[in-house]
Amino acid sequence: MATLSEKAVENLALLREKKPLIHNITNFVVMNYTANALLAMGASPVMAHAPNEVEDMVSFAGALVLNIGTLTDDWIASMVKAGKKASAMGTPIILDPVGSGATPLRTNSAKQIIEQTKISVIRGNASEILSLRHEDSKTKGVDSVHSVDEAADTARILAEELQTTLAITGPVDLVTDGQRVARITNGHPLMGYVTGTGCTATTAIAAFLAVDGDPVSAAASALAYFGYAGEVAGQAVSAPGSFMIRMIDALYTITPEELQEGCKIEAD
Amino acid sequence: MATLSEKAVENLALLREKKPLIHNITNFVVMNYTANALLAMGASPVMAHAPNEVEDMVSFAGALVLNIGTLTDDWIASMVKAGKKASAMGTPIILDPVGSGATPLRTNSAKQIIEQTKISVIRGNASEILSLRHEDSKTKGVDSVHSVDEAADTARILAEELQTTLAITGPVDLVTDGQRVARITNGHPLMGYVTGTGCTATTAIAAFLAVDGDPVSAAASALAYFGYAGEVAGQAVSAPGSFMIRMIDALYTITPEELQEGCKIEAD
Amino acid sequence: MATLSEKAVENLALLREKKPLIHNITNFVVMNYTANALLAMGASPVMAHAPNEVEDMVSFAGALVLNIGTLTDDWIASMVKAGKKASAMGTPIILDPVGSGATPLRTNSAKQIIEQTKISVIRGNASEILSLRHEDSKTKGVDSVHSVDEAADTARILAEELQTTLAITGPVDLVTDGQRVARITNGHPLMGYVTGTGCTATTAIAAFLAVDGDPVSAAASALAYFGYAGEVAGQAVSAPGSFMIRMIDALYTITPEELQEGCKIEAD
Repeated sequence: MATLSEKAVENLALLREKKPLIHNITNFVVMNYTANALLAMGASPVMAHAPNEVEDMVSFAGALVLNIGTLTDDWIASMVKAGKKASAMGTPIILDPVGSGATPLRTNSAKQIIEQTKISVIRGNASEILSLRHEDSKTKGVDSVHSVDEAADTARILAEELQTTLAITGPVDLVTDGQRVARITNGHPLMGYVTGTGCTATTAIAAFLAVDGDPVSAAASALAYFGYAGEVAGQAVSAPGSFMIRMIDALYTITPEELQEGCKIEAD
Repeated sequence: MATLSEKAVENLALLREKKPLIHNITNFVVMNYTANALLAMGASPVMAHAPNEVEDMVSFAGALVLNIGTLTDDWIASMVKAGKKASAMGTPIILDPVGSGATPLRTNSAKQIIEQTKISVIRGNASEILSLRHEDSKTKGVDSVHSVDEAADTARILAEELQTTLAITGPVDLVTDGQRVARITNGHPLMGYVTGTGCTATTAIAAFLAVDGDPVSAAASALAYFGYAGEVAGQAVSAPGSFMIRMIDALYTITPEELQEGCKIEAD
Repeated sequence: MATLSEKAVENLALLREKKPLIHNITNFVVMNYTANALLAMGASPVMAHAPNEVEDMVSFAGALVLNIGTLTDDWIASMVKAGKKASAMGTPIILDPVGSGATPLRTNSAKQIIEQTKISVIRGNASEILSLRHEDSKTKGVDSVHSVDEAADTARILAEELQTTLAITGPVDLVTDGQRVARITNGHPLMGYVTGTGCTATTAIAAFLAVDGDPVSAAASALAYFGYAGEVAGQAVSAPGSFMIRMIDALYTITPEELQEGCKIEAD
C-alpha cells in the first residue's frame, strides 16, 4: 500500500493532470483567495450559490466545498440542497464549519449540514470540531484535552460518532476516520496572519478528494502540500501581505518531486 | 480614420484624463480585483446592487458592467433594472455572461438581460458567447468551429443576430459588430491561472467604452491594453500570485506610448 | 496627559497584546483586504451579518464596524440590530458611510444608523461626512468650505450636532469631537489608487477603539499609524498592486517605536 507521502506526490500529479472542477459555496471574505489558490494548485474553481442552480452546478463537480464563514439561512439552505445532490451522486463533500461553537447559528447550521448530507471530510480547528459533538458524545470539551495523544483519542472517537473523516488543523494537523490517524507537521506561523488560510486548506482537501477516493489520504496529503507551500513562502518573505501572495506562487510552483522531499506526514 | 492601434493610445490617454465612473453589478469573487484594476487603469469604480439604488447610481456612470458570475434571481433583477435605466440614458453597457451555457439559470439570465436592455458589448469565451444564440440562429455549436476563420464567420453572424458587439476572448481575442472584425494577440498564459482575468478584461472594455463611442474600437483597444499588461507582468514574474499583483501594477504604469509599441491588433 | 503621539505608540502596543475581536458588517469589495489588514495590525477580525447571529457575535467583540459600501435594506437592518446591541453593551461602534450623499439610499441608511445606535466615530471623506447633516444644521455644504481652518470649524460644529467624533480623511486627516481637533498628515498618494483604503482606515480606528476609550485619540492615532504604513509601503514600491500588499506588510512590521518616530499628529 502506498504511504501517505507517496499519496501526496501521486495526488498532486493527478490534480494537475485532471484539473477537476471544485464547486464552492463559501464565504465572501475568502472567495477570491480560494479561487486563486485552486487555480494555482491546478484545479478549476466555480462559486455558485443560487438555490435554482446549485444542483445543476454540483453535478459537473469533482468535489463540493461547504463553508459557513459568512452564513445566512438562505445560503445554508443552498448548501444543504447542493450537498444532498452531491451525496446522491457520490461526489465528495468537505465541510468547513467556520466559527462553529461561537454562535448558535453557526453550530446549528453546521450540524444541520452534517445530518442532511454525506460529508467526506470536516476541516476545522479543535474548538470548531469539538462543537459538532452530539449531546450524548463520549468526548469532552476542548478544555479537557491536555496533550497531543488525548487530542488524537478524542478526534478518533468523534470521527466514529460523526461517521466521517476529521481534519483538525493547528500547529500539528490531525486527520482521522476513527481508525487511522495521520499527523502533519508542515506549516508556517505566518499562515495565522492571513485571512482564510484555514478555508484555503479546506479547498486543497477538496481538490485532493476529487482525485483520491480515500478521505484520510486525500486530507492528509492536501494538508502536507498546503503546509509545505507555507514553508516555501515563509523562506522567501517575512510579512503577511507578501506571504499570502507567495503562498499562491508556491502552490503553483511546487512539483510532486519537491513535495515528496518536503512533506511531513506521520501515520499511526 | 484612426487605426485601432491609434484608438488604443487615444483611449488610454482619455481614460486617465477623464477618470470615468464605472458602475459594476458583478460577482463576489472578483469585486476587489476588478475595483483595483479599474483604479489602476485610471477609472473610478463603484459597486452597487440594491434594487432601490441602482437607477440612481447608474445615472452618474460612464458605463455599466453586468456580470453574472455569482448570480441569484434578485441580483439579475437589479441588473435588468440598472440596464434599463442605462439603456434609456444611452450609457454603454457591457455584459459578462460568466458560465452561460453551463447551467440553465446562467443561460436564461444572460438572455433575459440581452432582451431587456441595450448591450453595447458582450465579452465572454467562445462557449459562453455561443450559448447566447437564438433558437433559430444560423450559427452552429462550439464543436462545429474548426478554425480561426470559421470562428470569425460564426462570431460575425452571431453579432448581427444579437445586434451587438461581441468580444470573444481566448488565445486570440476576436471583436466584431457583424461587419468589422478585429483580432488581438496580446496576452500571457498566466492570465488563465488568475481568477477573474476575463471579468477584469470586461471592466477594461467598460472603461474604454466610457471614453470611446465605438464599441468595436473600445473593445479591441481595451483588450490589447489588458493583454499587454499581462505581457509586462509576465516578463517580471513567473507564478500566478505575483503575476496578478504585477498586472495591477502594469495597468497603472503602462503609458499610451508604451501601449502604442506593445499593442497587437489586426483588423480585417 | 499623554500626547496623541504617545497614545499612538501605546495603542499599537496594546492592540498587539490584547488582539481584540473586531466585528465587521461591511461591504463585499473590501472584506478580504480589511480582514487581512486587521490580522496584520494584530487584531482578530470576524465578518458576520446574519440577522439571527449579529447580536450574539457582537457581544464578544471589542468594537463593531458598520460600513455601507454595498448596502441593501436587509444588511442595513442587520447593522442596526448589531449596533443597538453594541450600544446597549457600551461596545464602541464606528460607521463608514461609504458614498453617503451620492444616492438617497446611502444618505438615508447612514442617517438611520446614526439615529438608532450610539456611534463612537464616523469616518468618511468630506462630502460623505457633510451629507450627514441634519436639515437644520448650522453648517453649509461642501462647496462653502474654502480652507483647512473653515473645514475644522465646520467639522467641529457637525460633530457637536451629531454628538459623535468625526474622522474626516483626505490629504490631511481631521479628527474632532466638537471640542478637540487633531490633524494627521501621514499618508501616501498611492493610497488613492487602492480600493478600500478608506474602509481599511476605518477598521484601524475600530481596532484602536477596542483598546482606547477616548474616540479622539483612538481615531487620530489609528489614522497616523495607517497613513505611516502607506508611507513605508510607498518607499518600497511605486505601483498600486505591489503597494497594497506592502501596506499589509507595513501594518505588520511597524513597531510602536517606529510609529513614534513616524507619526505626524498635531492637536489644537
